[in-house]
Amino acid sequence: MIPKNHPRAKSLLVREKLVAGYEKGLVAKEGLIAHGRGEAFDYLLGEKTSKNAEKAIKTAALSLISAKSPVISVNGNVASLCAKEIIQLAKIINAKIEVNLFYANQKRKKRIARILKINGAKKVLGVDSKSAKKIPKLDSARRIVDTSGIYSADVILVPLEDGDRTLMLKKFGKKVITFDLNPLSRTAQTADITIVDDISRGMRKLIQICRKLKKSKVKQHNSFDNKRNLVEAVKEIKKNLEKRAIHA
Amino acid sequence: MIPKNHPRAKSLLVREKLVAGYEKGLVAKEGLIAHGRGEAFDYLLGEKTSKNAEKAIKTAALSLISAKSPVISVNGNVASLCAKEIIQLAKIINAKIEVNLFYANQKRKKRIARILKINGAKKVLGVDSKSAKKIPKLDSARRIVDTSGIYSADVILVPLEDGDRTLMLKKFGKKVITFDLNPLSRTAQTADITIVDDISRGMRKLIQICRKLKKSKVKQHNSFDNKRNLVEAVKEIKKNLEKRAIHA
Repeated sequence: MIPKNHPRAKSLLVREKLVAGYEKGLVAKEGLIAHGRGEAFDYLLGEKTSKNAEKAIKTAALSLISAKSPVISVNGNVASLCAKEIIQLAKIINAKIEVNLFYANQKRKKRIARILKINGAKKVLGVDSKSAKKIPKLDSARRIVDTSGIYSADVILVPLEDGDRTLMLKKFGKKVITFDLNPLSRTAQTADITIVDDISRGMRKLIQICRKLKKSKVKQHNSFDNKRNLVEAVKEIKKNLEKRAIHA
Repeated sequence: MIPKNHPRAKSLLVREKLVAGYEKGLVAKEGLIAHGRGEAFDYLLGEKTSKNAEKAIKTAALSLISAKSPVISVNGNVASLCAKEIIQLAKIINAKIEVNLFYANQKRKKRIARILKINGAKKVLGVDSKSAKKIPKLDSARRIVDTSGIYSADVILVPLEDGDRTLMLKKFGKKVITFDLNPLSRTAQTADITIVDDISRGMRKLIQICRKLKKSKVKQHNSFDNKRNLVEAVKEIKKNLEKRAIHA
């Protein structure tokens, strides 16, 4: 048990959720390591939703609400950390859900699909090999997407994604929204909208704002420069490093 | 399989080594996540041995060469990433090798000892409960050390160590040398000499320098201020953040 008054209790609880996902066979071992990377960046970002993340979330919400065929791409880490939130968001923005893995594995895919269905998803794409289609020029299993999902989507939310794949989705003409705690990663730099925030924390905000926007029926986009917003995230890390270095 | 042209192929290969160690029962799940945190810091440090790390390595080499009873403390991550290097170093500096785990587990200890022996270690301490001794005031299993190993050592190399344990070894009068990629961690801040570098990379340099020093028989210590050196490591991260932010 993690003591409630532990200064990093929230982060440790998220970690436990991921380890539980690993034990259920949803998360790859590499996914545990990737989560550790995220933890370090979140630590450097002060473990809170920064202003630049809020700005990216607002822009992402507008894009998702006004998309024609939005798709949410789910991997093992995403399913372990926020399956419920994925379903909630999909309902609000009327998005399809597709399982798509970096370390592909049919069994793991099916387990992830099952967890999503247990949490309320009616349909989960990416599992049936009959509807699989290949994105040109992308290596190995990662290039396989679902015909009626990512293949024909206009806007894709791909949280915690690999750089190669993000790049390929961009080249393939998709509008890409991602969650990535490393503002310098290729995914962060390649996506159209990068939310530099912990996915559990940021996803709840994204749902809130999508809900609000849907009611108000706002369709107008605000001005948003992803690269400039990422520079703000880097500044945030530098600010925190200075603060912590003084207290060390 | 990791695509050879992946920009972070080296780091991914090290990651695979650790995952292989996990599969052999050497590494704990928490060890996988901890490695991910290290990866993030290494990335921010530019995935190279910085000047401050070189300075710490030189100072560490001098301390180890001139120690009376040096001991190298090995956990699952260390054994998975550089078992061979540990044996090489131990031979050069005439050090004992002791298995010591944060998440103690007799089976895992024995597996680690076996891997070290396969790689050429003649004797591995910390496995035989008959020679176990307790460090006062340290919690649970972590306080147990070997009578003829850490307990009676003057200089200890404890790479990838926990903060509580580092603090306790210091209080127990030991000179502590560590590898830690987070210059702000308690271990980094508590040790006498902190090498802020990836262990696979830094260990090879440490071996090189120890070999040179042994031949030249230099015993004179240079001036070294660990806290000041750690500030240099933080500066290095900030510098890299700026550089990468421009090129991104």
